[in-house]
Amino acid sequence: MEDSLVQRTASAYAYPLLIKNLLFSPLVNNPEQQIVYRDRIRYDYRTLRQRIGQLAHALRRLGVKPGDTVAVMDWDSHRYLECFFAVPMIGAVLHTVNIRLSPEQILYTIDHAEDDVLLVNEEFLPVLEQIKGRIDTVKKYVLLSDSGNMPQTTLEIDAEYEALLDRCPAEYEFPDFDENTRATTFYTTGTTGMPKGVYFSHRQLVLHSLGTLSAMATPQTQGRLHQGDVYMPITPMFHVHAWGFPYIATMLGIKQVYPGRYAPDTLLELIAREKVSFSHCVPTIMHMLLAHPGIDGVDLSGWKVIIGGAAMSKALCKAALGRGIDIFSGYGMSETCPVLTLAHLSPEMLEGDEDAQAEIRCRTGRPLPLVEVLLVDEKMSPVPAGEGSGGEIVVRSPWLTQGYLKDVKNSETLWHGGYLHTGDVACADERGYLKITDRIKDVIKTGGEWISSLELEDIIARHPAVAEVAVIGMPDEKWGERPLALVVARPGQSAALDEEAIRTHVQGYVDKGVVSRWSVPDRVRFVEAIDKTSVGKINKVALRDKYL
Amino acid sequence: MEDSLVQRTASAYAYPLLIKNLLFSPLVNNPEQQIVYRDRIRYDYRTLRQRIGQLAHALRRLGVKPGDTVAVMDWDSHRYLECFFAVPMIGAVLHTVNIRLSPEQILYTIDHAEDDVLLVNEEFLPVLEQIKGRIDTVKKYVLLSDSGNMPQTTLEIDAEYEALLDRCPAEYEFPDFDENTRATTFYTTGTTGMPKGVYFSHRQLVLHSLGTLSAMATPQTQGRLHQGDVYMPITPMFHVHAWGFPYIATMLGIKQVYPGRYAPDTLLELIAREKVSFSHCVPTIMHMLLAHPGIDGVDLSGWKVIIGGAAMSKALCKAALGRGIDIFSGYGMSETCPVLTLAHLSPEMLEGDEDAQAEIRCRTGRPLPLVEVLLVDEKMSPVPAGEGSGGEIVVRSPWLTQGYLKDVKNSETLWHGGYLHTGDVACADERGYLKITDRIKDVIKTGGEWISSLELEDIIARHPAVAEVAVIGMPDEKWGERPLALVVARPGQSAALDEEAIRTHVQGYVDKGVVSRWSVPDRVRFVEAIDKTSVGKINKVALRDKYL
Repeated sequence: MEDSLVQRTASAYAYPLLIKNLLFSPLVNNPEQQIVYRDRIRYDYRTLRQRIGQLAHALRRLGVKPGDTVAVMDWDSHRYLECFFAVPMIGAVLHTVNIRLSPEQILYTIDHAEDDVLLVNEEFLPVLEQIKGRIDTVKKYVLLSDSGNMPQTTLEIDAEYEALLDRCPAEYEFPDFDENTRATTFYTTGTTGMPKGVYFSHRQLVLHSLGTLSAMATPQTQGRLHQGDVYMPITPMFHVHAWGFPYIATMLGIKQVYPGRYAPDTLLELIAREKVSFSHCVPTIMHMLLAHPGIDGVDLSGWKVIIGGAAMSKALCKAALGRGIDIFSGYGMSETCPVLTLAHLSPEMLEGDEDAQAEIRCRTGRPLPLVEVLLVDEKMSPVPAGEGSGGEIVVRSPWLTQGYLKDVKNSETLWHGGYLHTGDVACADERGYLKITDRIKDVIKTGGEWISSLELEDIIARHPAVAEVAVIGMPDEKWGERPLALVVARPGQSAALDEEAIRTHVQGYVDKGVVSRWSVPDRVRFVEAIDKTSVGKINKVALRDKYL
Repeated sequence: MEDSLVQRTASAYAYPLLIKNLLFSPLVNNPEQQIVYRDRIRYDYRTLRQRIGQLAHALRRLGVKPGDTVAVMDWDSHRYLECFFAVPMIGAVLHTVNIRLSPEQILYTIDHAEDDVLLVNEEFLPVLEQIKGRIDTVKKYVLLSDSGNMPQTTLEIDAEYEALLDRCPAEYEFPDFDENTRATTFYTTGTTGMPKGVYFSHRQLVLHSLGTLSAMATPQTQGRLHQGDVYMPITPMFHVHAWGFPYIATMLGIKQVYPGRYAPDTLLELIAREKVSFSHCVPTIMHMLLAHPGIDGVDLSGWKVIIGGAAMSKALCKAALGRGIDIFSGYGMSETCPVLTLAHLSPEMLEGDEDAQAEIRCRTGRPLPLVEVLLVDEKMSPVPAGEGSGGEIVVRSPWLTQGYLKDVKNSETLWHGGYLHTGDVACADERGYLKITDRIKDVIKTGGEWISSLELEDIIARHPAVAEVAVIGMPDEKWGERPLALVVARPGQSAALDEEAIRTHVQGYVDKGVVSRWSVPDRVRFVEAIDKTSVGKINKVALRDKYL
């Protein structure tokens, strides 16, 4: 087959898929389009390109070589956007540090990623001071600051970002190199062990941009991204490249708004003033915005929002729809760059009532072009299609991490059988929409049946006296596992709540055929609080340690 | 830098960009979507996939191996679409034979491409009969026929397409292979020499699909392609893969309509009945449709059409707009897969009057994502931006032919200096819209100035007594070259037309500042007809031979 490959004449240009190439069309088509940082900075794409050149020179002068790693600790900013481009464009790796981790975990990730230079927002200097003297690899620190003033710190700061750029020319001849060069790395927190590093190449980020845009731009009406949109991320840039949308928005040449730290009043103000029309966020943030008193003054009817990172409840979906927000689900994870599926609605579906629409908007969605999704059983055999017939989501696409950084064992588990294992259990409806029913490790296997702990948690949470609930599998000699419900009562409601009340409540759903009779929990424990991970997920590992 | 490449764990899947992968999402999202062939065939995407599997088996049984070449001679059909997928998906090369060439040229391309199997529509059997006995490489002939009946022919036909598929199973495990494997090949006719073969890999066709869709789907309002569209090609599938849109339409999972041979009444009937909303064609075809009496009965107000292959005149553009057609220009060539630029209008531009809109709709357009366009002088130095400052369009993009098949000399000329030379001279306006002013070989270089023969032709054609005109450069001792106009008078108008009338007409445009005073032709010759190439372009080589 070797001679079946396309022959390249000596002078022909073998075009590599590099991040720098995303900049061609916006600079021709939209050089005057704006990029906005809070109420502080406003510049055009021409300036973005110049500052990317300046930053590239600055990094080189700091000693950054191709293959080195440059870490960033910042809120969402135009400076972060500049790093998204300049760092990989000189052949270095961008490490987007998750500033929500504990100082010890942050130390672990800096160390593990072997960061050479660290760009840090002044707000995070106290974190670094806590782990000072234990950071081995970082040679230079650069301060990110809106004021430009050097703050009080015991750390040795080598330079301030803006002063550094000011001294550098804008012209930079970005070199070509292998499109499989690592461009980004960041860490994902599971419920077990230390954070694991994922990584993406230039090729993967370019293909993720094209593939995600193909799905985002082509819906007939609902939730489509176009050249007239104004983009503002509300999933942090340190979290899976803000879902890759800063790259997509830049390639499209649309107006971009970076809000700094997420404060509800700032976000609402920016949406109103800058006419933001497209964002993405986790359910918690949407909940926070909807609950904020300032929302009444803001017209949100032109705002499209993808919800991801956790399942959206129908209640949240309806509350957002009530504000005129075009809200819908997307699915992916750190390991997948991240976008895999989107829950767009067809024109017929938009004719349905709010409840029917919410049902679809809360689904996990349908696969993007080039994304191959299979639902498989434990032996990797595809499960038959149809509602109720669940299987683990395993995927192939051009933009999946090819392993965990320096972690052969977990890499092989992730890619067992040649498909990336999401660990999510889902079923698909007849129109191809996936719906996640559980995390595989949270599945309760009882008498050959799988019970979805998520579904059971959802049902128990509907009891009016329940504030919070977690369900875990309890070892059982006869059945293998049986569900144990851990319940936090609403303030003043604990008197109204006993084990039997919960069981009767669940039995009601069994009687309605919503869940199987195996789902009624054998035991219910009333607890003060439910353990969470650093990113706010229920920590089932800790709960199992504590209660089993 | 080697260790800067992403590390791939042993079990990870290294996703290649293969044509088969375009089929994942439509089969999940739109399995019941329709594909229509004239008034004869209507089936869904599930059936398409099954027939692709059957065709793959059939080709293998005919002896086709990876690396072999399968040629097709057909009008636009569902069978051609099946070949677009099945042939490259088994690792073979699809040769889309240009059936508008002369029999001798067709023989040359079959021979040059080393076709192993030839699928031929019964209408083209007479062509093959003319070159029978001189085709060396083809081992098997397959008949394409709507009736399924074996026609009278002196050729040895090995099988009929439908009978062949009927005997084959639908399941076929399409293998993975290198994404740089050659997928397609076809021949481009210049104005000199024999046709030259261009070729495209799986990777290139996938990236062309994603890149072109990114530009086609994202306009805010005008001319956008979406999931509700119905696609019908009116540029033949043998001409640069019908501009690549059958691949894009299939990836999108939209309804597709294949019209067979282009007859105006069939085309109009299909547009009306199947609610076709998106097509592409050359100006000649649009002209033919607009002139057809049947057009009055058809509502064309929902029809988007890209015009390419030749420059669209403002008159044609306005006539189409008058019918409610959303018409605009696209640009590319056989060597470029083909799409490079599109002339979409922004919402502000749509507020302009018809004349202002037509001006933009007739421009060459703005570059797609990932397409790098430069305008350069003869030394490959970029010319300064701005109207009137023309240079040759040279390009880089992921989807350009990497040479001409088995033709080192022309390959190197094409790629001189590491950019693909289009041979087109253009200028760019302040909004990035290119406008082609000439073909480089048709430029008339006079006293250090370049005169656009296209522009001069356009001006002379506006004289009411002129039916047709061609302008060529005449050697001149003093000026290097001077324009010679070859003019065909309108029937009955030759009395009204003399050399001085033409010169006075052009002088009017000189006086208005439209063209330089060097543009007034030194000599005008009145001729009976103007020589054309096989594809209907003005044959300047023949004209120079004849008149210089």
